[in-house]
Amino acid sequence: MDTRTTQTNLEPYLIVIPVYDGVDLMDIAAPREIFGWLESDTSFNRCVRVLYIGDDQKKTFVTNNGVEIAMDAGFQDKDVQHPNLIWVPGGRPEALAIILNDEYSLFTAYVKRTGANADWVCSVCEGAILLANTGLLDGHNITTHWAFVNCFKKFPKVTVVAGHPRYVKSGNRITGGGISSGLDEALYLVELIAGTSSAVAIQQTMQYYPDPPVKSSIPEAAAVKFLD
Amino acid sequence: MDTRTTQTNLEPYLIVIPVYDGVDLMDIAAPREIFGWLESDTSFNRCVRVLYIGDDQKKTFVTNNGVEIAMDAGFQDKDVQHPNLIWVPGGRPEALAIILNDEYSLFTAYVKRTGANADWVCSVCEGAILLANTGLLDGHNITTHWAFVNCFKKFPKVTVVAGHPRYVKSGNRITGGGISSGLDEALYLVELIAGTSSAVAIQQTMQYYPDPPVKSSIPEAAAVKFLD
Repeated sequence: MDTRTTQTNLEPYLIVIPVYDGVDLMDIAAPREIFGWLESDTSFNRCVRVLYIGDDQKKTFVTNNGVEIAMDAGFQDKDVQHPNLIWVPGGRPEALAIILNDEYSLFTAYVKRTGANADWVCSVCEGAILLANTGLLDGHNITTHWAFVNCFKKFPKVTVVAGHPRYVKSGNRITGGGISSGLDEALYLVELIAGTSSAVAIQQTMQYYPDPPVKSSIPEAAAVKFLD
Repeated sequence: MDTRTTQTNLEPYLIVIPVYDGVDLMDIAAPREIFGWLESDTSFNRCVRVLYIGDDQKKTFVTNNGVEIAMDAGFQDKDVQHPNLIWVPGGRPEALAIILNDEYSLFTAYVKRTGANADWVCSVCEGAILLANTGLLDGHNITTHWAFVNCFKKFPKVTVVAGHPRYVKSGNRITGGGISSGLDEALYLVELIAGTSSAVAIQQTMQYYPDPPVKSSIPEAAAVKFLD
C-alpha cells in the first residue's frame, strides 16, 4: 500500500539520501543544508525531514574525505519506504564499484524500490551511475560529473545530454553534474516543490550569490575504466 | 615552543575547524570538501589534514540541521595546538550565544591560543562573531553573514566592509560572508596556500561553475538581538 495516497500536510515531506562508505561529503551535505532550510520556511507549511539512510547493520558511515556521520535510518526501516524525494549521491569510484558489482546490494534494492513511487528521483555527480543501475533512468535525459560521462556507454537506454549542465529535468527524474552542482540542483528542486519564493528565501539565507575566485572550464574527460 | 619552526614538507599541513553543537553543516562541509581535494593534489606535494576539533569530553557533535558527526580531536589534544589554518564556522544564534556568554569557553580559548600563531585565521558566516570575541579580528577589515552585520557594534575595533563581499583578506585574516560564501573563500585560500593551478584543479574536480536557478539580492538586515 502506498501510504502517500492518504497523506495530509501533517505528514512530513520525506527526503532520503541513501549513503555508503566513500560517499562524497558535499554530495550529501548540499541537499541536507538546502532542504533543511525548507523546514523553517513558513510559506511551505509542511514538516520536512532529510535523512541519511544506510546499511541497517551499521550506525555510521564514512565519507570519501574521512568524515564519520551517523545514519538516521536503515534501508529496511519501515518509516523510510515511501519517500517523497530520493537523492542518490556520488562518491569514490571504488565505492561505487562495490555497489555496482553486488547483485544483492541493499543500496540498489532500496533505491529501486523507493524510487519507483517517489515524487522526485534525483542524483548528483556519479550518483547517476548508481541510479542508472536500477533502471530508473531508462528512457531519460540526464547529466553527471563531466569526467564520468563515458561510463554511460554501459546504459544504452540513458541519454547523457551535451554541455555539462548543472542539472537536467526529465519527467520526475532530476540529475545533477559534478559535486557542487548539487547546490543548484537542490535549490531548483525547492523551486519545483515549494515555489520560487521559497527558493529565493533559501538563496538569501545561504547568501548563495557564488563568485568563484578562479576561472576555468571543464576539461576533456579521460576515459574512466572502473565500470569495465 | 612553536614546532612549526622545524617543520618540513613531511609534516602535514594542518587545517582545524573548531565545532560545537548547532554549527551550520555547510559552514564546516565546504572547507572540508575543498581542502580535502588539496590532499590529492600532487603539485602541492604536502600531506593535508582537515580536522573537526571539539569538546574533549564528547565524541560527536550535532549540526543545526541534526547531522551527528564524529570529532577528530579535542581542544586539549596536543596534536592540534599548532594548526597552519584555523576556520571558525557559524551556526545557530543560540549556540553562538552559549559560547559568547561563557567566559571559560574552551572553544574560545582554543581559537585564541591556536589562532595567535596560525598562518591563516579564518571564519565563515557568523563565525566572525566568535572570532571577533577572541580579539583576533581587532584592527581588521572583515565580512560576515549579511544579517549579522549589526552584531559588530559590540566590536568597535573590527570594521565590517560594505557590500557583503564573498570574503575579505586583511593580513592573514580571511573572513567569509554567509554560509555558501565558504566555498569561494576556501577556494581562494587554496589559491593563497598552493597556487592558482591547484585552485583550478579543485574547481574542475568539483565542477564548481555555479549557476543558481533563482535570482535575487541581499535584503536589508533586520536588527539581530542575540548579542545584546
